[in-house]
Amino acid sequence: MSAMPPFKLLGLPGSLRARSVSRAVLHSLAGAMPPHVEWSVFDLHGIPLYNEDFDADPPGSVPALRAAVIACDGIVVLSPEYNHGMSGVMKNAIDWVSRPGYNSVLKDKPVAILTTSESPLGGARAQADLHKLFLSTLSRIAPGREVSIGSTARTVVDGAIADEALKKRVLALIDSLLREIVLVRGAGRAPAP
Amino acid sequence: MSAMPPFKLLGLPGSLRARSVSRAVLHSLAGAMPPHVEWSVFDLHGIPLYNEDFDADPPGSVPALRAAVIACDGIVVLSPEYNHGMSGVMKNAIDWVSRPGYNSVLKDKPVAILTTSESPLGGARAQADLHKLFLSTLSRIAPGREVSIGSTARTVVDGAIADEALKKRVLALIDSLLREIVLVRGAGRAPAP
Amino acid sequence: MSAMPPFKLLGLPGSLRARSVSRAVLHSLAGAMPPHVEWSVFDLHGIPLYNEDFDADPPGSVPALRAAVIACDGIVVLSPEYNHGMSGVMKNAIDWVSRPGYNSVLKDKPVAILTTSESPLGGARAQADLHKLFLSTLSRIAPGREVSIGSTARTVVDGAIADEALKKRVLALIDSLLREIVLVRGAGRAPAP
Amino acid sequence: MSAMPPFKLLGLPGSLRARSVSRAVLHSLAGAMPPHVEWSVFDLHGIPLYNEDFDADPPGSVPALRAAVIACDGIVVLSPEYNHGMSGVMKNAIDWVSRPGYNSVLKDKPVAILTTSESPLGGARAQADLHKLFLSTLSRIAPGREVSIGSTARTVVDGAIADEALKKRVLALIDSLLREIVLVRGAGRAPAP
Repeated sequence: MSAMPPFKLLGLPGSLRARSVSRAVLHSLAGAMPPHVEWSVFDLHGIPLYNEDFDADPPGSVPALRAAVIACDGIVVLSPEYNHGMSGVMKNAIDWVSRPGYNSVLKDKPVAILTTSESPLGGARAQADLHKLFLSTLSRIAPGREVSIGSTARTVVDGAIADEALKKRVLALIDSLLREIVLVRGAGRAPAP
Repeated sequence: MSAMPPFKLLGLPGSLRARSVSRAVLHSLAGAMPPHVEWSVFDLHGIPLYNEDFDADPPGSVPALRAAVIACDGIVVLSPEYNHGMSGVMKNAIDWVSRPGYNSVLKDKPVAILTTSESPLGGARAQADLHKLFLSTLSRIAPGREVSIGSTARTVVDGAIADEALKKRVLALIDSLLREIVLVRGAGRAPAP
Repeated sequence: MSAMPPFKLLGLPGSLRARSVSRAVLHSLAGAMPPHVEWSVFDLHGIPLYNEDFDADPPGSVPALRAAVIACDGIVVLSPEYNHGMSGVMKNAIDWVSRPGYNSVLKDKPVAILTTSESPLGGARAQADLHKLFLSTLSRIAPGREVSIGSTARTVVDGAIADEALKKRVLALIDSLLREIVLVRGAGRAPAP
Repeated sequence: MSAMPPFKLLGLPGSLRARSVSRAVLHSLAGAMPPHVEWSVFDLHGIPLYNEDFDADPPGSVPALRAAVIACDGIVVLSPEYNHGMSGVMKNAIDWVSRPGYNSVLKDKPVAILTTSESPLGGARAQADLHKLFLSTLSRIAPGREVSIGSTARTVVDGAIADEALKKRVLALIDSLLREIVLVRGAGRAPAP
């Protein structure tokens, strides 16, 4: 494995509040990542509302987000669930990055999808939205059982996942993401059907 | 009907670009509204990204949007479809207005849902998202066949719907919204079951 | 209220197995219904696979199901969640009853939507499907917070809901259904907008 | 490529009527398949309503369907859209095949998803349901732009796709399915991350 290039993973938290569970949990994962993973978290607070008029010359930190998506091998999305869907903050950021349609920097990019909420449901309903979103951008959703970080008052302590079984499921999904990245890398060398 | 109070309807366009079809079409409907309708369109460009930390004292034009929702009898949502879903701009605005959860100013508010896209599909896929969103806020979705403003290069001319059959369907949905408002008003006087 | 006609409610369980939680819970609700409610449960085991060729002369118990839908004032759907969606059994039954499209016996019919699963999520993901389904048939979804009967090993005992808080939420949704029925009845007498 | 084993593809039509567009189009694709593809179509008319009690010893043609899924390298689903979702017939068949949950014969199986309807929308709304379904079974959805066979009175003649641009899109999706199969085969030899 020594010849294997490192895996650059990009964490995208879907909430902006100071004590955001999404952001805290993503940062806390730094210490739990497998070797060979370079981990960074991109905060969406500098992404303005999407306006198609500025697709060619986007404002704020949109260029930085696009660059981060290009530079990474895979994305870990962690969105809170608001009103049974992903946060508008998350949808808005992906709207910027998804252009031009069907041929953006998200195309073929492996993505792991996680949600969180205070309720026991953990944002399970928002995951269908996120799946739909990243299928429409022709990204590759890392396969695996859904992972919802719910009942956060109990399961997240000091910004890190305190429930060991849940933490294992999160890391299993990230492992699935790494396998998907290996698969996509290999596809470059695979014979066409 | 002379004793009937006017119907205050609020149009919410889901796009911010200068030549937004959503905004233009909503403005163009002013001339087509039935009598007794007071029609206004609220542009979402002044709504910042949602941040739960500011729920109690929201920035930008969020207070104005909440006031407009309180003041109106019904809402006409017209969102473009981006990436098979509603615009992040629309989801973000409703995230602000939807608090506190299940008991916001959107509760029991009648809503008519329209989408648009350049494709012949007209945003049909985004409607399921919008339905899910406004059911979660306990709003009342005006019943009726879905209305998608698609193939806009042909159907929308100078910012107004140029296809007569399509225009009739839009107005039929607004009529359904008015009937829903009458129903809700009547509910205040209805005997409990 | 003595002049109020009774409320005929129809329970539709989405599972066929002998020890179906859906069926058992619906039957168990008989004793908890408010006065003026006539309650019946229609088992879907006699509904064959949907085949459009037989729309005009449907086989099996499809005619009986259509008659039951016509005769009732409101429907209580209780579906298990299979594969993150409603059961195929439920979708198949509604496919039969939904014809002709947009003008079937389901049009304007009030519907309360409940789901169940062994997991703590209680089928929450299937509810969006059911909402989408019954909006497409132009039925009226009784408004209210979603009610999922989850963790059934604990919450359902001898085929009845044993968790008092959960039972209250189920009955609150049925109350919302009754209010919707009253609203629809009143609409027949309401002035047009 | 001579050493490449053949690709066994399984077509699943979601409608049962005699003149089903789904079934006819799948059969018509036989002549258009690339070399190395062994193509078969499995008709769902012998699949009874799902009943969990019989998971271990399923009736009708369920064992044959499971065997066909096991034997194939990839699945081409083609469902009509009924009531804004996939057909109940399709959902019901997959409910049988999906057990045991998260570990069924559908796990890791590549799947291409197509829909059809008489309307210009071509069943686009049902595709989100099908994506959700096959993500829940941990199948691998072949990436690509959505392909909807709409306006069938014009686009499908004598049971075959008559619109050349549409036919190209269908075959492009099947090509994506073949690439996914190659990827999955290669994964068996890929180094773990």
